[in-house]
Amino acid sequence: MVKRNPDLTKLQAGYLFPEINRRKRKVQEENPKAKIISLGVGNTTEPLKPHITNALKKAAEELGTQEGYSGYGDEQGLTELRAKIAANLYGGLVKPDEVYVSDGAKCDIGRLQMMFGSHVKIAVQDPSYPVYVDGSVITGASGGYSSKKGYFGGIVYMPCTPQNGFFPDLKKTPKTDIIYFCSPNNPTGAVASREQLKELVDYAKKNKSIIVFDAAYGEFIRDKRLPKTIYEIEGAREVAIEINSFSKPAGFTGVRLGYTIVPKELKYDDGTEVNKDWNRIITTLFNGASNIAQKGGLAALEREGMTEMKETIDYYLNNARIIRETLREMGVTTYGGDNAPYIWAHFKGRKSWDVFEEILDKAHVVSTPGVGFGPAGEGFIRFSAFGHRADIEEAAKRLREKIK
Amino acid sequence: MVKRNPDLTKLQAGYLFPEINRRKRKVQEENPKAKIISLGVGNTTEPLKPHITNALKKAAEELGTQEGYSGYGDEQGLTELRAKIAANLYGGLVKPDEVYVSDGAKCDIGRLQMMFGSHVKIAVQDPSYPVYVDGSVITGASGGYSSKKGYFGGIVYMPCTPQNGFFPDLKKTPKTDIIYFCSPNNPTGAVASREQLKELVDYAKKNKSIIVFDAAYGEFIRDKRLPKTIYEIEGAREVAIEINSFSKPAGFTGVRLGYTIVPKELKYDDGTEVNKDWNRIITTLFNGASNIAQKGGLAALEREGMTEMKETIDYYLNNARIIRETLREMGVTTYGGDNAPYIWAHFKGRKSWDVFEEILDKAHVVSTPGVGFGPAGEGFIRFSAFGHRADIEEAAKRLREKIK
Repeated sequence: MVKRNPDLTKLQAGYLFPEINRRKRKVQEENPKAKIISLGVGNTTEPLKPHITNALKKAAEELGTQEGYSGYGDEQGLTELRAKIAANLYGGLVKPDEVYVSDGAKCDIGRLQMMFGSHVKIAVQDPSYPVYVDGSVITGASGGYSSKKGYFGGIVYMPCTPQNGFFPDLKKTPKTDIIYFCSPNNPTGAVASREQLKELVDYAKKNKSIIVFDAAYGEFIRDKRLPKTIYEIEGAREVAIEINSFSKPAGFTGVRLGYTIVPKELKYDDGTEVNKDWNRIITTLFNGASNIAQKGGLAALEREGMTEMKETIDYYLNNARIIRETLREMGVTTYGGDNAPYIWAHFKGRKSWDVFEEILDKAHVVSTPGVGFGPAGEGFIRFSAFGHRADIEEAAKRLREKIK
Repeated sequence: MVKRNPDLTKLQAGYLFPEINRRKRKVQEENPKAKIISLGVGNTTEPLKPHITNALKKAAEELGTQEGYSGYGDEQGLTELRAKIAANLYGGLVKPDEVYVSDGAKCDIGRLQMMFGSHVKIAVQDPSYPVYVDGSVITGASGGYSSKKGYFGGIVYMPCTPQNGFFPDLKKTPKTDIIYFCSPNNPTGAVASREQLKELVDYAKKNKSIIVFDAAYGEFIRDKRLPKTIYEIEGAREVAIEINSFSKPAGFTGVRLGYTIVPKELKYDDGTEVNKDWNRIITTLFNGASNIAQKGGLAALEREGMTEMKETIDYYLNNARIIRETLREMGVTTYGGDNAPYIWAHFKGRKSWDVFEEILDKAHVVSTPGVGFGPAGEGFIRFSAFGHRADIEEAAKRLREKIK
């Protein structure tokens, strides 16, 4: 038989969220009448707003007409959508042909890893979104797993904890080719300041590294001093790729629409524009985001759509406030949740999976064990603010009553 | 700076279809009033039919309601859709949990290549759909390019020409890990018989290879003796993955919906089910097809939708007949186009790109140069049967009048 990909054999257990779902299903089976509330995976729950919904509906309808039908479009996305993202979301900091529309940030991360190949050395924040590491392991950009350390060999983990204000100590960080950095952060909810991002960009420049900046939660930033995109930082166009998404602001987790920015100034050692290779990857192994979803994205960037996105995010930020206040009343130290949809709660002296199990068993609330995002997440629980208000309030009540 | 992925440096020029579009744009600029007709890329042109359109519209509308909203679904696709594909399209030859719904066949090929990794040796039909080779080059499963031969090192090319009835001489084919095989074939339009596929399956079994069977054009088969899926062949479940798509039958090239079948019997040398690794790839690096597209797929598999798909394909098959007859009247030898949307036309003694340029310059018709699909395609032109009937008839008229 064919030899199994040795890189796949390195991966530990399952992907985090399917594992959480498995445990949730088990508790549901044991308690068939229980109404389990999920504050686990960051999955949007609120209906799409009218302007965006109507655009999707109209796009579907038009596909049934001779004039409105469209088949394959440019793999890079609708010209109008690329232009509107550059203008309305980046205020001209990036150009339309640097914007690549896709079916989502997670998928683009996989394609970026394919583009970089197996020879690159990567750095990630610890804790971090699992796809940066897992995808790099799959593409061969890591060594084997050490269950003692909870780390993969060959990958640089940059601890981000309350002690360092969730920003890595770059002076102590060895040089790597690729640095994954997420702000507002999943899972900690921390948002890097302008000064911190300047330090990161300068560090990447000095070390000739590429930053993959995950800005999927950028629209949750309400503090105007905090940068929404890395391109607000001088010099970032020479060192950073930015990943972004309509998933959370427009409620498109199911509709599927994201985008990746690759500035023309970003180059490989042989002078090749990274943009050129990215274009090759996208045209060869991708066929464009759904035309219906792209029309929805266009509507989301119109004035009414922008208002609708703001309202949707306001709703989830209010949820975040309720969870944060509940945990604080319970005496739990929390981080994030003010400019991000995630609350990072510290259960001192305890193991993440134990707290996760306790909350699931006693309160029938699903959370995410912090250690699932990396060893530095041990002792933490991530609460997601995505949910119906009534469910959030019910979950808050149960947490207060059943835990501790 | 970061070292460029050495595998990407191996890729030749651009991806075929963007190159064709570039040449088309050039002719359009030089002849601004000309109406250029495309029989090039296999892009659907006919509007979606009412039953399928209404389902898409309803799906979009429901996303605007509390009850009908959905966010992330299972990465593998809607349970109901997986079941319906297994039942209605495969008549139970595959099981629902062997069906993985995706955003399209091209994207799934890229993910399969990520799963197989760089250590596998691959075989492709020559000519073939460029993504099998290009994606394998990107994932490091090839050597360098030989411009003299038009081949990448380390890849086995299996010539499929009129001389061998477009079926490879397997006795002379060296053993490889992965065999890409497409039937109905893109670009030749050839359909493998039951006996041929039996020979292929037996060959794979003997050599312990995995067949990646691309059945994206299976619904164009009208000759009931010809197998629509490789799972009609005994033993195929132990050796074959099948890729398929709603793009052509439902007109979903822009909507984006495909699926890949990975039977549980298919295993790696260490006994691991390929299905298990595929599930890991899909959950880690993909986030599901658009929920709207999936609802469209469900409707396409209802009785009315199945009728609509048949009507759509009838339309394109009639186009194919017109093109085929035109070329034959012109004295050009043609293949395919009866159970496939592609006509493979032999212009003896000439170079594909020369014929392509002549047809584009004189008749303002875009075709695809056969050599773009592999060295054995030299001297051939692929005509795609996707187009409005009036355009097909106009193109046929121009070909008769302007060429030769």
